[in-house]
Amino acid sequence: MDLLNKLNWRYAAKAMNGEKVAEDKIERILEATRLAPTSSGLQPFEVMVIKNQDIKEQIRPVAWNQSVVTDCSHLLVFAAWDTYTPERINYMFDLTNDIRGFKNEGWENYRQMLLDSYPQKDEQENFEHAARQAYIAFSHAIIAAAYENVDATPLEGFDATEVDKILGLREKGLRSAVLLPLGYRKEDEDWLVNLVKVRKPMEDMVTVIE
Amino acid sequence: MDLLNKLNWRYAAKAMNGEKVAEDKIERILEATRLAPTSSGLQPFEVMVIKNQDIKEQIRPVAWNQSVVTDCSHLLVFAAWDTYTPERINYMFDLTNDIRGFKNEGWENYRQMLLDSYPQKDEQENFEHAARQAYIAFSHAIIAAAYENVDATPLEGFDATEVDKILGLREKGLRSAVLLPLGYRKEDEDWLVNLVKVRKPMEDMVTVIE
Repeated sequence: MDLLNKLNWRYAAKAMNGEKVAEDKIERILEATRLAPTSSGLQPFEVMVIKNQDIKEQIRPVAWNQSVVTDCSHLLVFAAWDTYTPERINYMFDLTNDIRGFKNEGWENYRQMLLDSYPQKDEQENFEHAARQAYIAFSHAIIAAAYENVDATPLEGFDATEVDKILGLREKGLRSAVLLPLGYRKEDEDWLVNLVKVRKPMEDMVTVIE
Repeated sequence: MDLLNKLNWRYAAKAMNGEKVAEDKIERILEATRLAPTSSGLQPFEVMVIKNQDIKEQIRPVAWNQSVVTDCSHLLVFAAWDTYTPERINYMFDLTNDIRGFKNEGWENYRQMLLDSYPQKDEQENFEHAARQAYIAFSHAIIAAAYENVDATPLEGFDATEVDKILGLREKGLRSAVLLPLGYRKEDEDWLVNLVKVRKPMEDMVTVIE
């Protein structure tokens, strides 16, 4: 299938050339991100889309000085909710009722169950849960970029506390979870571009229980 | 783009009809899963593909009795490494050297850096990190299923300890992270199938920093 071709085409670009990605491509990548499924539909994350070169320059030294941070076109920062609050849960349930145009008893009971459990949990546990949802969306963005023939570098190597400070995320109840620079590969400076993709063989990943 | 059509088509099926998914479709979904990028390329997870009806019946009661667990065709269980060990790290670095046919000093230094840090970390922290990687692959599987016109139900509502017991995962150094029943929707019993998809508006998800 076409999807497999796209997945074989993509790789984690290690050098980018500074060329700008067209805004319509970025919009479709963000739309794929927005459509990603999340637990109870809460979408417990936001995405910072950094075009500002000064901000990229501030982030680079706290991201292992990786050149793609500054040489990308758009730097996406996936920031997960620091915890689940009643306000955040109610926002999504109210939005659902608004969009669907009706209230449903089962759905309201489900809302109450979440209100009675999530906000009372440990903040770190809630953040980890929210971060996993952000990763689903992040993964959608990676595939969407490949569909646009845009290079992307999934990037966990950064100091989250420092990135949070630079972007003022904690004050917004957010914590940076993962980065995705989007741009175009610079082949002559990218040690990875011509190396064969390595994945463990299917039999080491999959166990079929017949 | 075609991807957005697929993402708008898919939804979390709440009832399935028991129809079997062709094995070539399952193979392509698993291949997309295998191609997902992961941190340092470690692919720190395995996928149990459950076709056995008895095992599905055992899992259903510890998964909120959700009917899709038994009425799906193939139940995928994404099981993340319980921690990072030197053996696991060396396996992937050795595999990379084998496949690429050469050793590289920078790559060997990177291996050593991981060996000097990951195995010494707290197990729960390592599991959470591995689980996030499993979620990237899980997200790839969700999209791949949509490309095959196969329904899928992202499913976090289960007792991981019990699923681990049923599948003997802990003995293998694995912990169940998330489930993905694959199959075909049963429209007349699915309360969600005809409801409009709800996502928060783009402006509530994205902040552009110009």
